[in-house]
Amino acid sequence: MVKINENYAKEKKNYLFIEIAKRTAEFKKQNPGVKLLSLGIGNTTLPLSQSVIEGLNKGVKYLADISTYTGYGDEQGNSDLRQSLVEFYKKRGIDIDVNEIFVSDGAKPDTANLQSIFAKDSVAAIQDPSYPVYVETNMIAGKKIVYMPCTPENNFVPELPAQHVDLIYICSPNNPTGAVLTKETLKKFVDFANQNQAIIIFDAAYFAYIKDPALPKSIYEIEGAKTCAIEVNSFSKWAGFTGVRLGWTVVPFSLKGEDVEEGQINHIWKRRQTTMFNGASNVAQVGGIAVLTEKGQKESQKLVDYYMENAKIIEGGLKNNGFAVYGGENAPYLWVKTPSGKTSWEFFDILLNQANVVVTPGVGFGPSGEGFIRISAFGNRKDIEEAVQRISSLKNDL
Amino acid sequence: MVKINENYAKEKKNYLFIEIAKRTAEFKKQNPGVKLLSLGIGNTTLPLSQSVIEGLNKGVKYLADISTYTGYGDEQGNSDLRQSLVEFYKKRGIDIDVNEIFVSDGAKPDTANLQSIFAKDSVAAIQDPSYPVYVETNMIAGKKIVYMPCTPENNFVPELPAQHVDLIYICSPNNPTGAVLTKETLKKFVDFANQNQAIIIFDAAYFAYIKDPALPKSIYEIEGAKTCAIEVNSFSKWAGFTGVRLGWTVVPFSLKGEDVEEGQINHIWKRRQTTMFNGASNVAQVGGIAVLTEKGQKESQKLVDYYMENAKIIEGGLKNNGFAVYGGENAPYLWVKTPSGKTSWEFFDILLNQANVVVTPGVGFGPSGEGFIRISAFGNRKDIEEAVQRISSLKNDL
Repeated sequence: MVKINENYAKEKKNYLFIEIAKRTAEFKKQNPGVKLLSLGIGNTTLPLSQSVIEGLNKGVKYLADISTYTGYGDEQGNSDLRQSLVEFYKKRGIDIDVNEIFVSDGAKPDTANLQSIFAKDSVAAIQDPSYPVYVETNMIAGKKIVYMPCTPENNFVPELPAQHVDLIYICSPNNPTGAVLTKETLKKFVDFANQNQAIIIFDAAYFAYIKDPALPKSIYEIEGAKTCAIEVNSFSKWAGFTGVRLGWTVVPFSLKGEDVEEGQINHIWKRRQTTMFNGASNVAQVGGIAVLTEKGQKESQKLVDYYMENAKIIEGGLKNNGFAVYGGENAPYLWVKTPSGKTSWEFFDILLNQANVVVTPGVGFGPSGEGFIRISAFGNRKDIEEAVQRISSLKNDL
Repeated sequence: MVKINENYAKEKKNYLFIEIAKRTAEFKKQNPGVKLLSLGIGNTTLPLSQSVIEGLNKGVKYLADISTYTGYGDEQGNSDLRQSLVEFYKKRGIDIDVNEIFVSDGAKPDTANLQSIFAKDSVAAIQDPSYPVYVETNMIAGKKIVYMPCTPENNFVPELPAQHVDLIYICSPNNPTGAVLTKETLKKFVDFANQNQAIIIFDAAYFAYIKDPALPKSIYEIEGAKTCAIEVNSFSKWAGFTGVRLGWTVVPFSLKGEDVEEGQINHIWKRRQTTMFNGASNVAQVGGIAVLTEKGQKESQKLVDYYMENAKIIEGGLKNNGFAVYGGENAPYLWVKTPSGKTSWEFFDILLNQANVVVTPGVGFGPSGEGFIRISAFGNRKDIEEAVQRISSLKNDL
């Protein structure tokens, strides 16, 4: 008699963004005609740049002709795309071997699945608050979780774990707080991981939003990272590929662990991916090559700049109205303290019902997110401006 | 100190098709200039049909304009695509609710991941031989496996499990044997699953290759299947999407299990997919809608017909040379007995080295596959004809 994996009972009933979508749909049903503005989910809204569209069109064209048609691709992804990624890192002074790169359909599946190649009794240290996927996938797998609180008191910089851990998840710029870790902080984590033979899973999905040149965009800018860190990255937020689906993960050959030979983690990840996954869409991969050209990168940066201008407008507007606002300087997210000690979901409901603005309740990202909301800077300018105005005009009633 | 999931040690070092690729690459290195013909991996080779190319182009065009651009899609997949799939089933007399359909990036990830939503101590019954993914993913998850042998002695029709099982994997047409189960056989499995509250995971990825109208193309043609069966399907072999990546899975609300409420398995799969996956590429999904139009289906059928003509040529050629050949009538695979009691890998090496033809060793699909090879009918006509000739001319030396 079939039974459900009992770890699902430990989870909230719905994934965070499904719960938000559910409450929003209920509101719409009861308030037809009301215009809702969404600053909730971190979803790109600008069309793809010209060179990327040309790349995708080329990808489709290849499939129309027998001489260029491709079925199952190279086992770790299109080799031209991986070579472009090698060059991309090289320009930033980082040497990555083409066989250390695994092309994926986005950062979410990889950050979700990486834990599965490690022993069941692994302990995972995770920033709190963080992208829900890290905690939930470790929980579903029955792994133990240690939270690393990130609060205004520590400037949203996590402390080193005080206990034994095997996996350390770091997202920088962090979703949802928008905090970016400095080279000095990352060096502490890299040293800790090397000393304890722990593995860092570094989520760099928001690297393109870092404006401050002193801040690291890749964990491999840190000395010693090649023996302890896996980097997960994505074209989603950088180039508007949230729907196109394309990402990559770097698994260095030199990673170490207990009784783990050189190359073994790379091999096991390859075993996992070739057994359970068949690669990203070949059309998306040709699009990815176009993103990585000089022209493609320049055009993608314009999309990023637009969203960052949105962030500035939100930050200014809310600060003017007395809100405590964090993040948004080197990240597309603003982390806002709820007024009058309201809980995250209380303030979510007020904003939904009274300002008709959808945000994300901070507690959805972990216990230290209680008393915060996350505002996303993805959206079109007019909506952003109107949303800020609506929240501002509400301020006196809070 | 990080340790590897110990279940990986139970696995063969490489995924089957990676091992084949490795041996093939070695041969090429040592024999430069020799033309290899590949009838190994089941990889489509014909270009996409015109209407599907138009669909994919439309998908790209949507992304170029702010008014049609999409990021993250509907949680279970593009709703027009799911509605088209509802119609697709309806035309065959099967009622599926649009929310019972989950669009995926192909049958492989879904057949790999479905086991993860069930309890760790679940027992999985799996056809032997079968697509390696079922056994390997259950093994990596630490689940127990019961083999259901499919041999010439039982006409490749599995017996009902003699012991308690929770999950039953059935692939029909089966990869690699090419055997298709009749309605009567499937009815026995459905009754058994309902009586034992087991769940059937039915892989229908090769349904389009069934020519005999009496044979079922969907498990839901069988009475009682809606309370015990999940169906996984794909656009890969049907419409040439092996590289485009698109599939779907039907998880009926009415599935039953131990302490499992109606709708619960559907909900848990949705929880799993929304937490760990972000949908198939939006471009691929628009392409899928084009496949499901009347014109798209007709054009896709032509690709299938071409491969089935290949299958007929292989079957005829090998039978004429005294080989025992199975499958290939309603499936793109031929299951061939090795001559003179050779093992699968011995015959694989002979074909590679002496005929310069790559096939798949049957033992790679499970213990009952020993003494067989699988020949794939995917490929262009000339290569297929030449490969058959090369194998035939070898026959006298075996």
